[in-house]
Amino acid sequence: MHAVNTEKEKQRVGEQATALIENDMLIGLGTGSTVYYFLRKLGEKVREGLQVMGVATSRQTQTLAESFGIPLVDFNAVNELDLTVDGADEANYQLQAIKGGGGALLSEKLVASRSKRVVWIMDATKLVRQLGNVALPVEVIPFGYAHTMGLLQKEGWEPVLRQDKGSIYTTDHGHYILDVPMNGIHDPHALSVWLHLLPGVVEHGLFLDFADTMYVADGDQVVVMHSHAK
Amino acid sequence: MHAVNTEKEKQRVGEQATALIENDMLIGLGTGSTVYYFLRKLGEKVREGLQVMGVATSRQTQTLAESFGIPLVDFNAVNELDLTVDGADEANYQLQAIKGGGGALLSEKLVASRSKRVVWIMDATKLVRQLGNVALPVEVIPFGYAHTMGLLQKEGWEPVLRQDKGSIYTTDHGHYILDVPMNGIHDPHALSVWLHLLPGVVEHGLFLDFADTMYVADGDQVVVMHSHAK
Repeated sequence: MHAVNTEKEKQRVGEQATALIENDMLIGLGTGSTVYYFLRKLGEKVREGLQVMGVATSRQTQTLAESFGIPLVDFNAVNELDLTVDGADEANYQLQAIKGGGGALLSEKLVASRSKRVVWIMDATKLVRQLGNVALPVEVIPFGYAHTMGLLQKEGWEPVLRQDKGSIYTTDHGHYILDVPMNGIHDPHALSVWLHLLPGVVEHGLFLDFADTMYVADGDQVVVMHSHAK
Repeated sequence: MHAVNTEKEKQRVGEQATALIENDMLIGLGTGSTVYYFLRKLGEKVREGLQVMGVATSRQTQTLAESFGIPLVDFNAVNELDLTVDGADEANYQLQAIKGGGGALLSEKLVASRSKRVVWIMDATKLVRQLGNVALPVEVIPFGYAHTMGLLQKEGWEPVLRQDKGSIYTTDHGHYILDVPMNGIHDPHALSVWLHLLPGVVEHGLFLDFADTMYVADGDQVVVMHSHAK
């Protein structure tokens, strides 16, 4: 292991992913600190003449895209997207990820599920053999969040209600987030279904069958990983 | 078949259900035109000295309960509820129902799932052999409702985005509702799971393993049905 500059890696992989963008593409725009560099570079290319339309997965990305001059369109106004570029909080070699640290998991999953192709960009610190080092974000209905927390606790989990500057954090969709420490996820598909059936759960941060390609920046290199499952 | 006065039946069964309420009970208060009579009668009993606390499943019920003098408590502030009394749009002999015509399905399901006992009250026109004469309400995320509609259409359903006075109807939770004509539901459990896993679906109106008892008003009689499954 050598010392890495994560910020440089984020920039490298974010900028490199803009090479995937072709004229007239409809692009899903992810959310987060790595996607920031993708958006900034994409904005440059748009100013140089590249013709694209984007769908933003968060207010944060909407604001950035607008400031970079990337034309946006409402998600409900489009059919299939050509490509979505997004980050991940943690991803394994099967191109499964935990997302939602930034709170945009719900829109990110909807946009990904409507995209022909999904590419995740990340620095090498995000790559793991087994998912579950980071807490799993679970988006829940505010009206019954205590009930949903109680159901998770009954199963032995220790969910934490996400806070933001002393208040309960609220997503772009008006929901709360429970961050659930995982300590390793052995069967992500089973956990995904179980969570979807849990009362009060809107969505969760397990992205299991979405990504076609991952770009992982490791020092000066960018490693490209493809899914064999899709 | 004899001509029935549905409104009288609703009143009869709503008022009769108040006999279930004992001192110091914490009660889930459903939503709808039959529950209205339950709330009105419960309010009378509270004014006569009955000690209860209620959890409202909608703003509509909150307003009614307050006007009838029923003390309310926040759902997140309580543990298990003793009893929930609610209506149904359609119910079968296995005590499974379609709910959500009034738009309160999400809170109703959360409150029911936290109740020791669930009682549904209805007039006899609601009782069916097979669920699916009424459309199934599916609560969805506004950001991606067109995508979710498209996924349903791909499977052969014909979802209708619920409207209210010329605008898109919005639930108490800020979501939209797709009303999906069913033409008979052959495997409600399979449909329930499939819908829960569909991107953008928050909740649906199939209530399959919730009710312990149904009170069905048929003319001058009230038929009581118990679940053997629970």
